[in-house]
Amino acid sequence: MSLLVVGTVAFDAIETPFGKTDKIIGGAATYISLAASYFTRKKINLVSVVGGDFPESAIKMLKDHRVNVDGLQILKDKKTFFWSGKYHNDMNTRDTLATELNVLGEFDPIVPASYQDCEFLMLGNLMPAVQLKVIAQLKNRPKLIVLDTMNFWMDIALAELKETLALVDVLTINDSEARQLSGEYSLVKAAAKILKMGPKYLIIKKGEHGALLFHKDQVFFAPALPLEDVFDPTGAGDSFAGGFIGFLAETKDISFDNMKRAIIFGSAMASFCVEKFGVEKLIGLTQKDVDERVQEFVDLVQFDIALV
Amino acid sequence: MSLLVVGTVAFDAIETPFGKTDKIIGGAATYISLAASYFTRKKINLVSVVGGDFPESAIKMLKDHRVNVDGLQILKDKKTFFWSGKYHNDMNTRDTLATELNVLGEFDPIVPASYQDCEFLMLGNLMPAVQLKVIAQLKNRPKLIVLDTMNFWMDIALAELKETLALVDVLTINDSEARQLSGEYSLVKAAAKILKMGPKYLIIKKGEHGALLFHKDQVFFAPALPLEDVFDPTGAGDSFAGGFIGFLAETKDISFDNMKRAIIFGSAMASFCVEKFGVEKLIGLTQKDVDERVQEFVDLVQFDIALV
Repeated sequence: MSLLVVGTVAFDAIETPFGKTDKIIGGAATYISLAASYFTRKKINLVSVVGGDFPESAIKMLKDHRVNVDGLQILKDKKTFFWSGKYHNDMNTRDTLATELNVLGEFDPIVPASYQDCEFLMLGNLMPAVQLKVIAQLKNRPKLIVLDTMNFWMDIALAELKETLALVDVLTINDSEARQLSGEYSLVKAAAKILKMGPKYLIIKKGEHGALLFHKDQVFFAPALPLEDVFDPTGAGDSFAGGFIGFLAETKDISFDNMKRAIIFGSAMASFCVEKFGVEKLIGLTQKDVDERVQEFVDLVQFDIALV
Repeated sequence: MSLLVVGTVAFDAIETPFGKTDKIIGGAATYISLAASYFTRKKINLVSVVGGDFPESAIKMLKDHRVNVDGLQILKDKKTFFWSGKYHNDMNTRDTLATELNVLGEFDPIVPASYQDCEFLMLGNLMPAVQLKVIAQLKNRPKLIVLDTMNFWMDIALAELKETLALVDVLTINDSEARQLSGEYSLVKAAAKILKMGPKYLIIKKGEHGALLFHKDQVFFAPALPLEDVFDPTGAGDSFAGGFIGFLAETKDISFDNMKRAIIFGSAMASFCVEKFGVEKLIGLTQKDVDERVQEFVDLVQFDIALV
C-alpha cells in the first residue's frame, strides 16, 4: 500500500452563473481520491468521516475508483459535513452561503493499522490539528507528505499551521494565501519565505492562470488549459492535488523533473473537474481522455528553441 | 530592408511604488525598436514624430541600436508627445496623470521611399486612422502586419479600428481589451470572435500571467517570468511586440512553430523591460544576457512527458 489521502468527504450545494445544484457529493478527499485514481493502480487509502446520511451509492462510487474506505468513519447518528457556496460572474471569487460542520466538528482521524506502510501522504485541507494527528499516528515517516491548507486556518490557527508546515515536504496554496502566509506581494519573495517554514517544495495555485512550483532556486510553471467555459471551479485545487500525488505515488520518483510531470497531470485533472458540476466529470474518465488532455497541455506550452 | 516600425516616440513621467521619474524617453515605437534590435541585424525603419525638444542624445541612442530615423519627423517648433502615469501597488492598474498630445495631435505619417520594400510591419498603438494611412502608403503588402491597439480606440474609434483589423495578420491586445472587443468573458470564445474580424493570429497579453497565441484551432501559451520585483511595467507590451516582430523579421518564417519562438523572445524582452524604469534595461543588453534570459523561460516551462 502506498497512498494515504486524508480530507473531507462532504455534501456541497453549488451555484454558478451556469446553474445550481442540490446537495451533491463533494469534499477535498473525494476530489483528491478520484483524480489520483487515474494515475495509480494501487489502492487509495482514505481517512475521513461522514454521517449516516451519506449514501451507499457514493461509497460504492469511491470503491469503483479503487478507494479503500477502511479508514472512512461512518457516524450513523450524525450528519455529513455540508458546504454551500455561490460563485460570482468572474468565477474567481465566491461567497460561502452555509457551512455545517456536523461530523467534522469532532473529527478524530484514525489511521487503520493496514494503512501504516503508506509512502505517500496527501493531507487535504482540514484544521491543522487534525492534519498533525494523522502525521503523529504514522510509525514510519512517509517518503513524501503533501499538505493543502487555506486562508481560514492562517486566520484562526496560524501557530498550529506553522507547526504542521514544519513537518511536510510539499505545500499547496493559492496565490493570495501565499501572500498572506509570507507577508510578501511578489510570489518569488513569498516562496523564498515559505520554503524556510519547512516545506521543501511549494506549489502556488493561480486558478485560471496556472500553477508555480518552487524548490530551492528552481521554479517551474504549468499553465491552466484555456477553456471555453469554466462551469464550476469547486474541487479544482483538490483534483490538481490528486493528479499530482497519484502520479508521484505510482512512479515513486520525487525528483524535480518528475514533480513537473506530476503538476501537468494535476493540471489536467483540474481542467476536467471544472467542466461539470462537482465530481461529475471525474467519474469514469478513460485513459484515452486523460492522454488526450495531457497532450493538449504539451501542445499548449512546448516550443523548440535551440540556443547556440 | 525588412522591418518597419510605426508608433509613438515620447516623453514619459512615471511613478511606481518603487520611485518616480522626471521626463524620460518612452513611446511604443521606442520600446518596440529597442527590443527588436536584439533579434535582427537589419536596420529597423522607424516612422514617428517628435518635437524640437526631443534630445539628440536619444536619437543617437536609437541609431546605436540600428534604428533608421529617416522616417522620424522632427517638428522643431512643437513639443514631443508626453504621458504621465502612476501605478497602483499591485502594478496591474494605473492612473493617467497627464496626456499632452503635442506633435501627435496632427501626426501625418509619411513612409519614406527607402522603406517601401519592408516585409514586416509593426503598427504600435496609435489612433487607427494613422495606422490605416501607413498601410495605404505601402505599394506592396508586407509579408506580415502586426497591430497593437488599446481600449481607448475601442471606445472612441471602433469603426476605424475594425477597418484596420480587417487588413492585418496579427493583433496584440490585453485580456480586458479582448473581452471588450469581443463581448465575451471567456478568452477562448473572445479569440474565436476576434479571429473572424480579420487577424489570422491573435496574441492576448495577460501581464504577469503570460500571453496566449491563438490561430485557427491552435493555442500556445507563454508564461511571464516570475520576478522578485516588477519595477515599472511601462512598455512591457511594446517590448514584447518588439522581440516578437524582430525575431520574425530576421528569420522570415511565419509558421506557427516559429511564432511560438517569437513569443518566447518577446516575453524575454518584456521581462527585462519591467526590471528598471523606462527603457533603461533595454539599452545595451548583451547577447549573453538575452540567451540566459531565454534559457530561464525554457527551464520554466519545459517538461518531458512521453505519452504511450
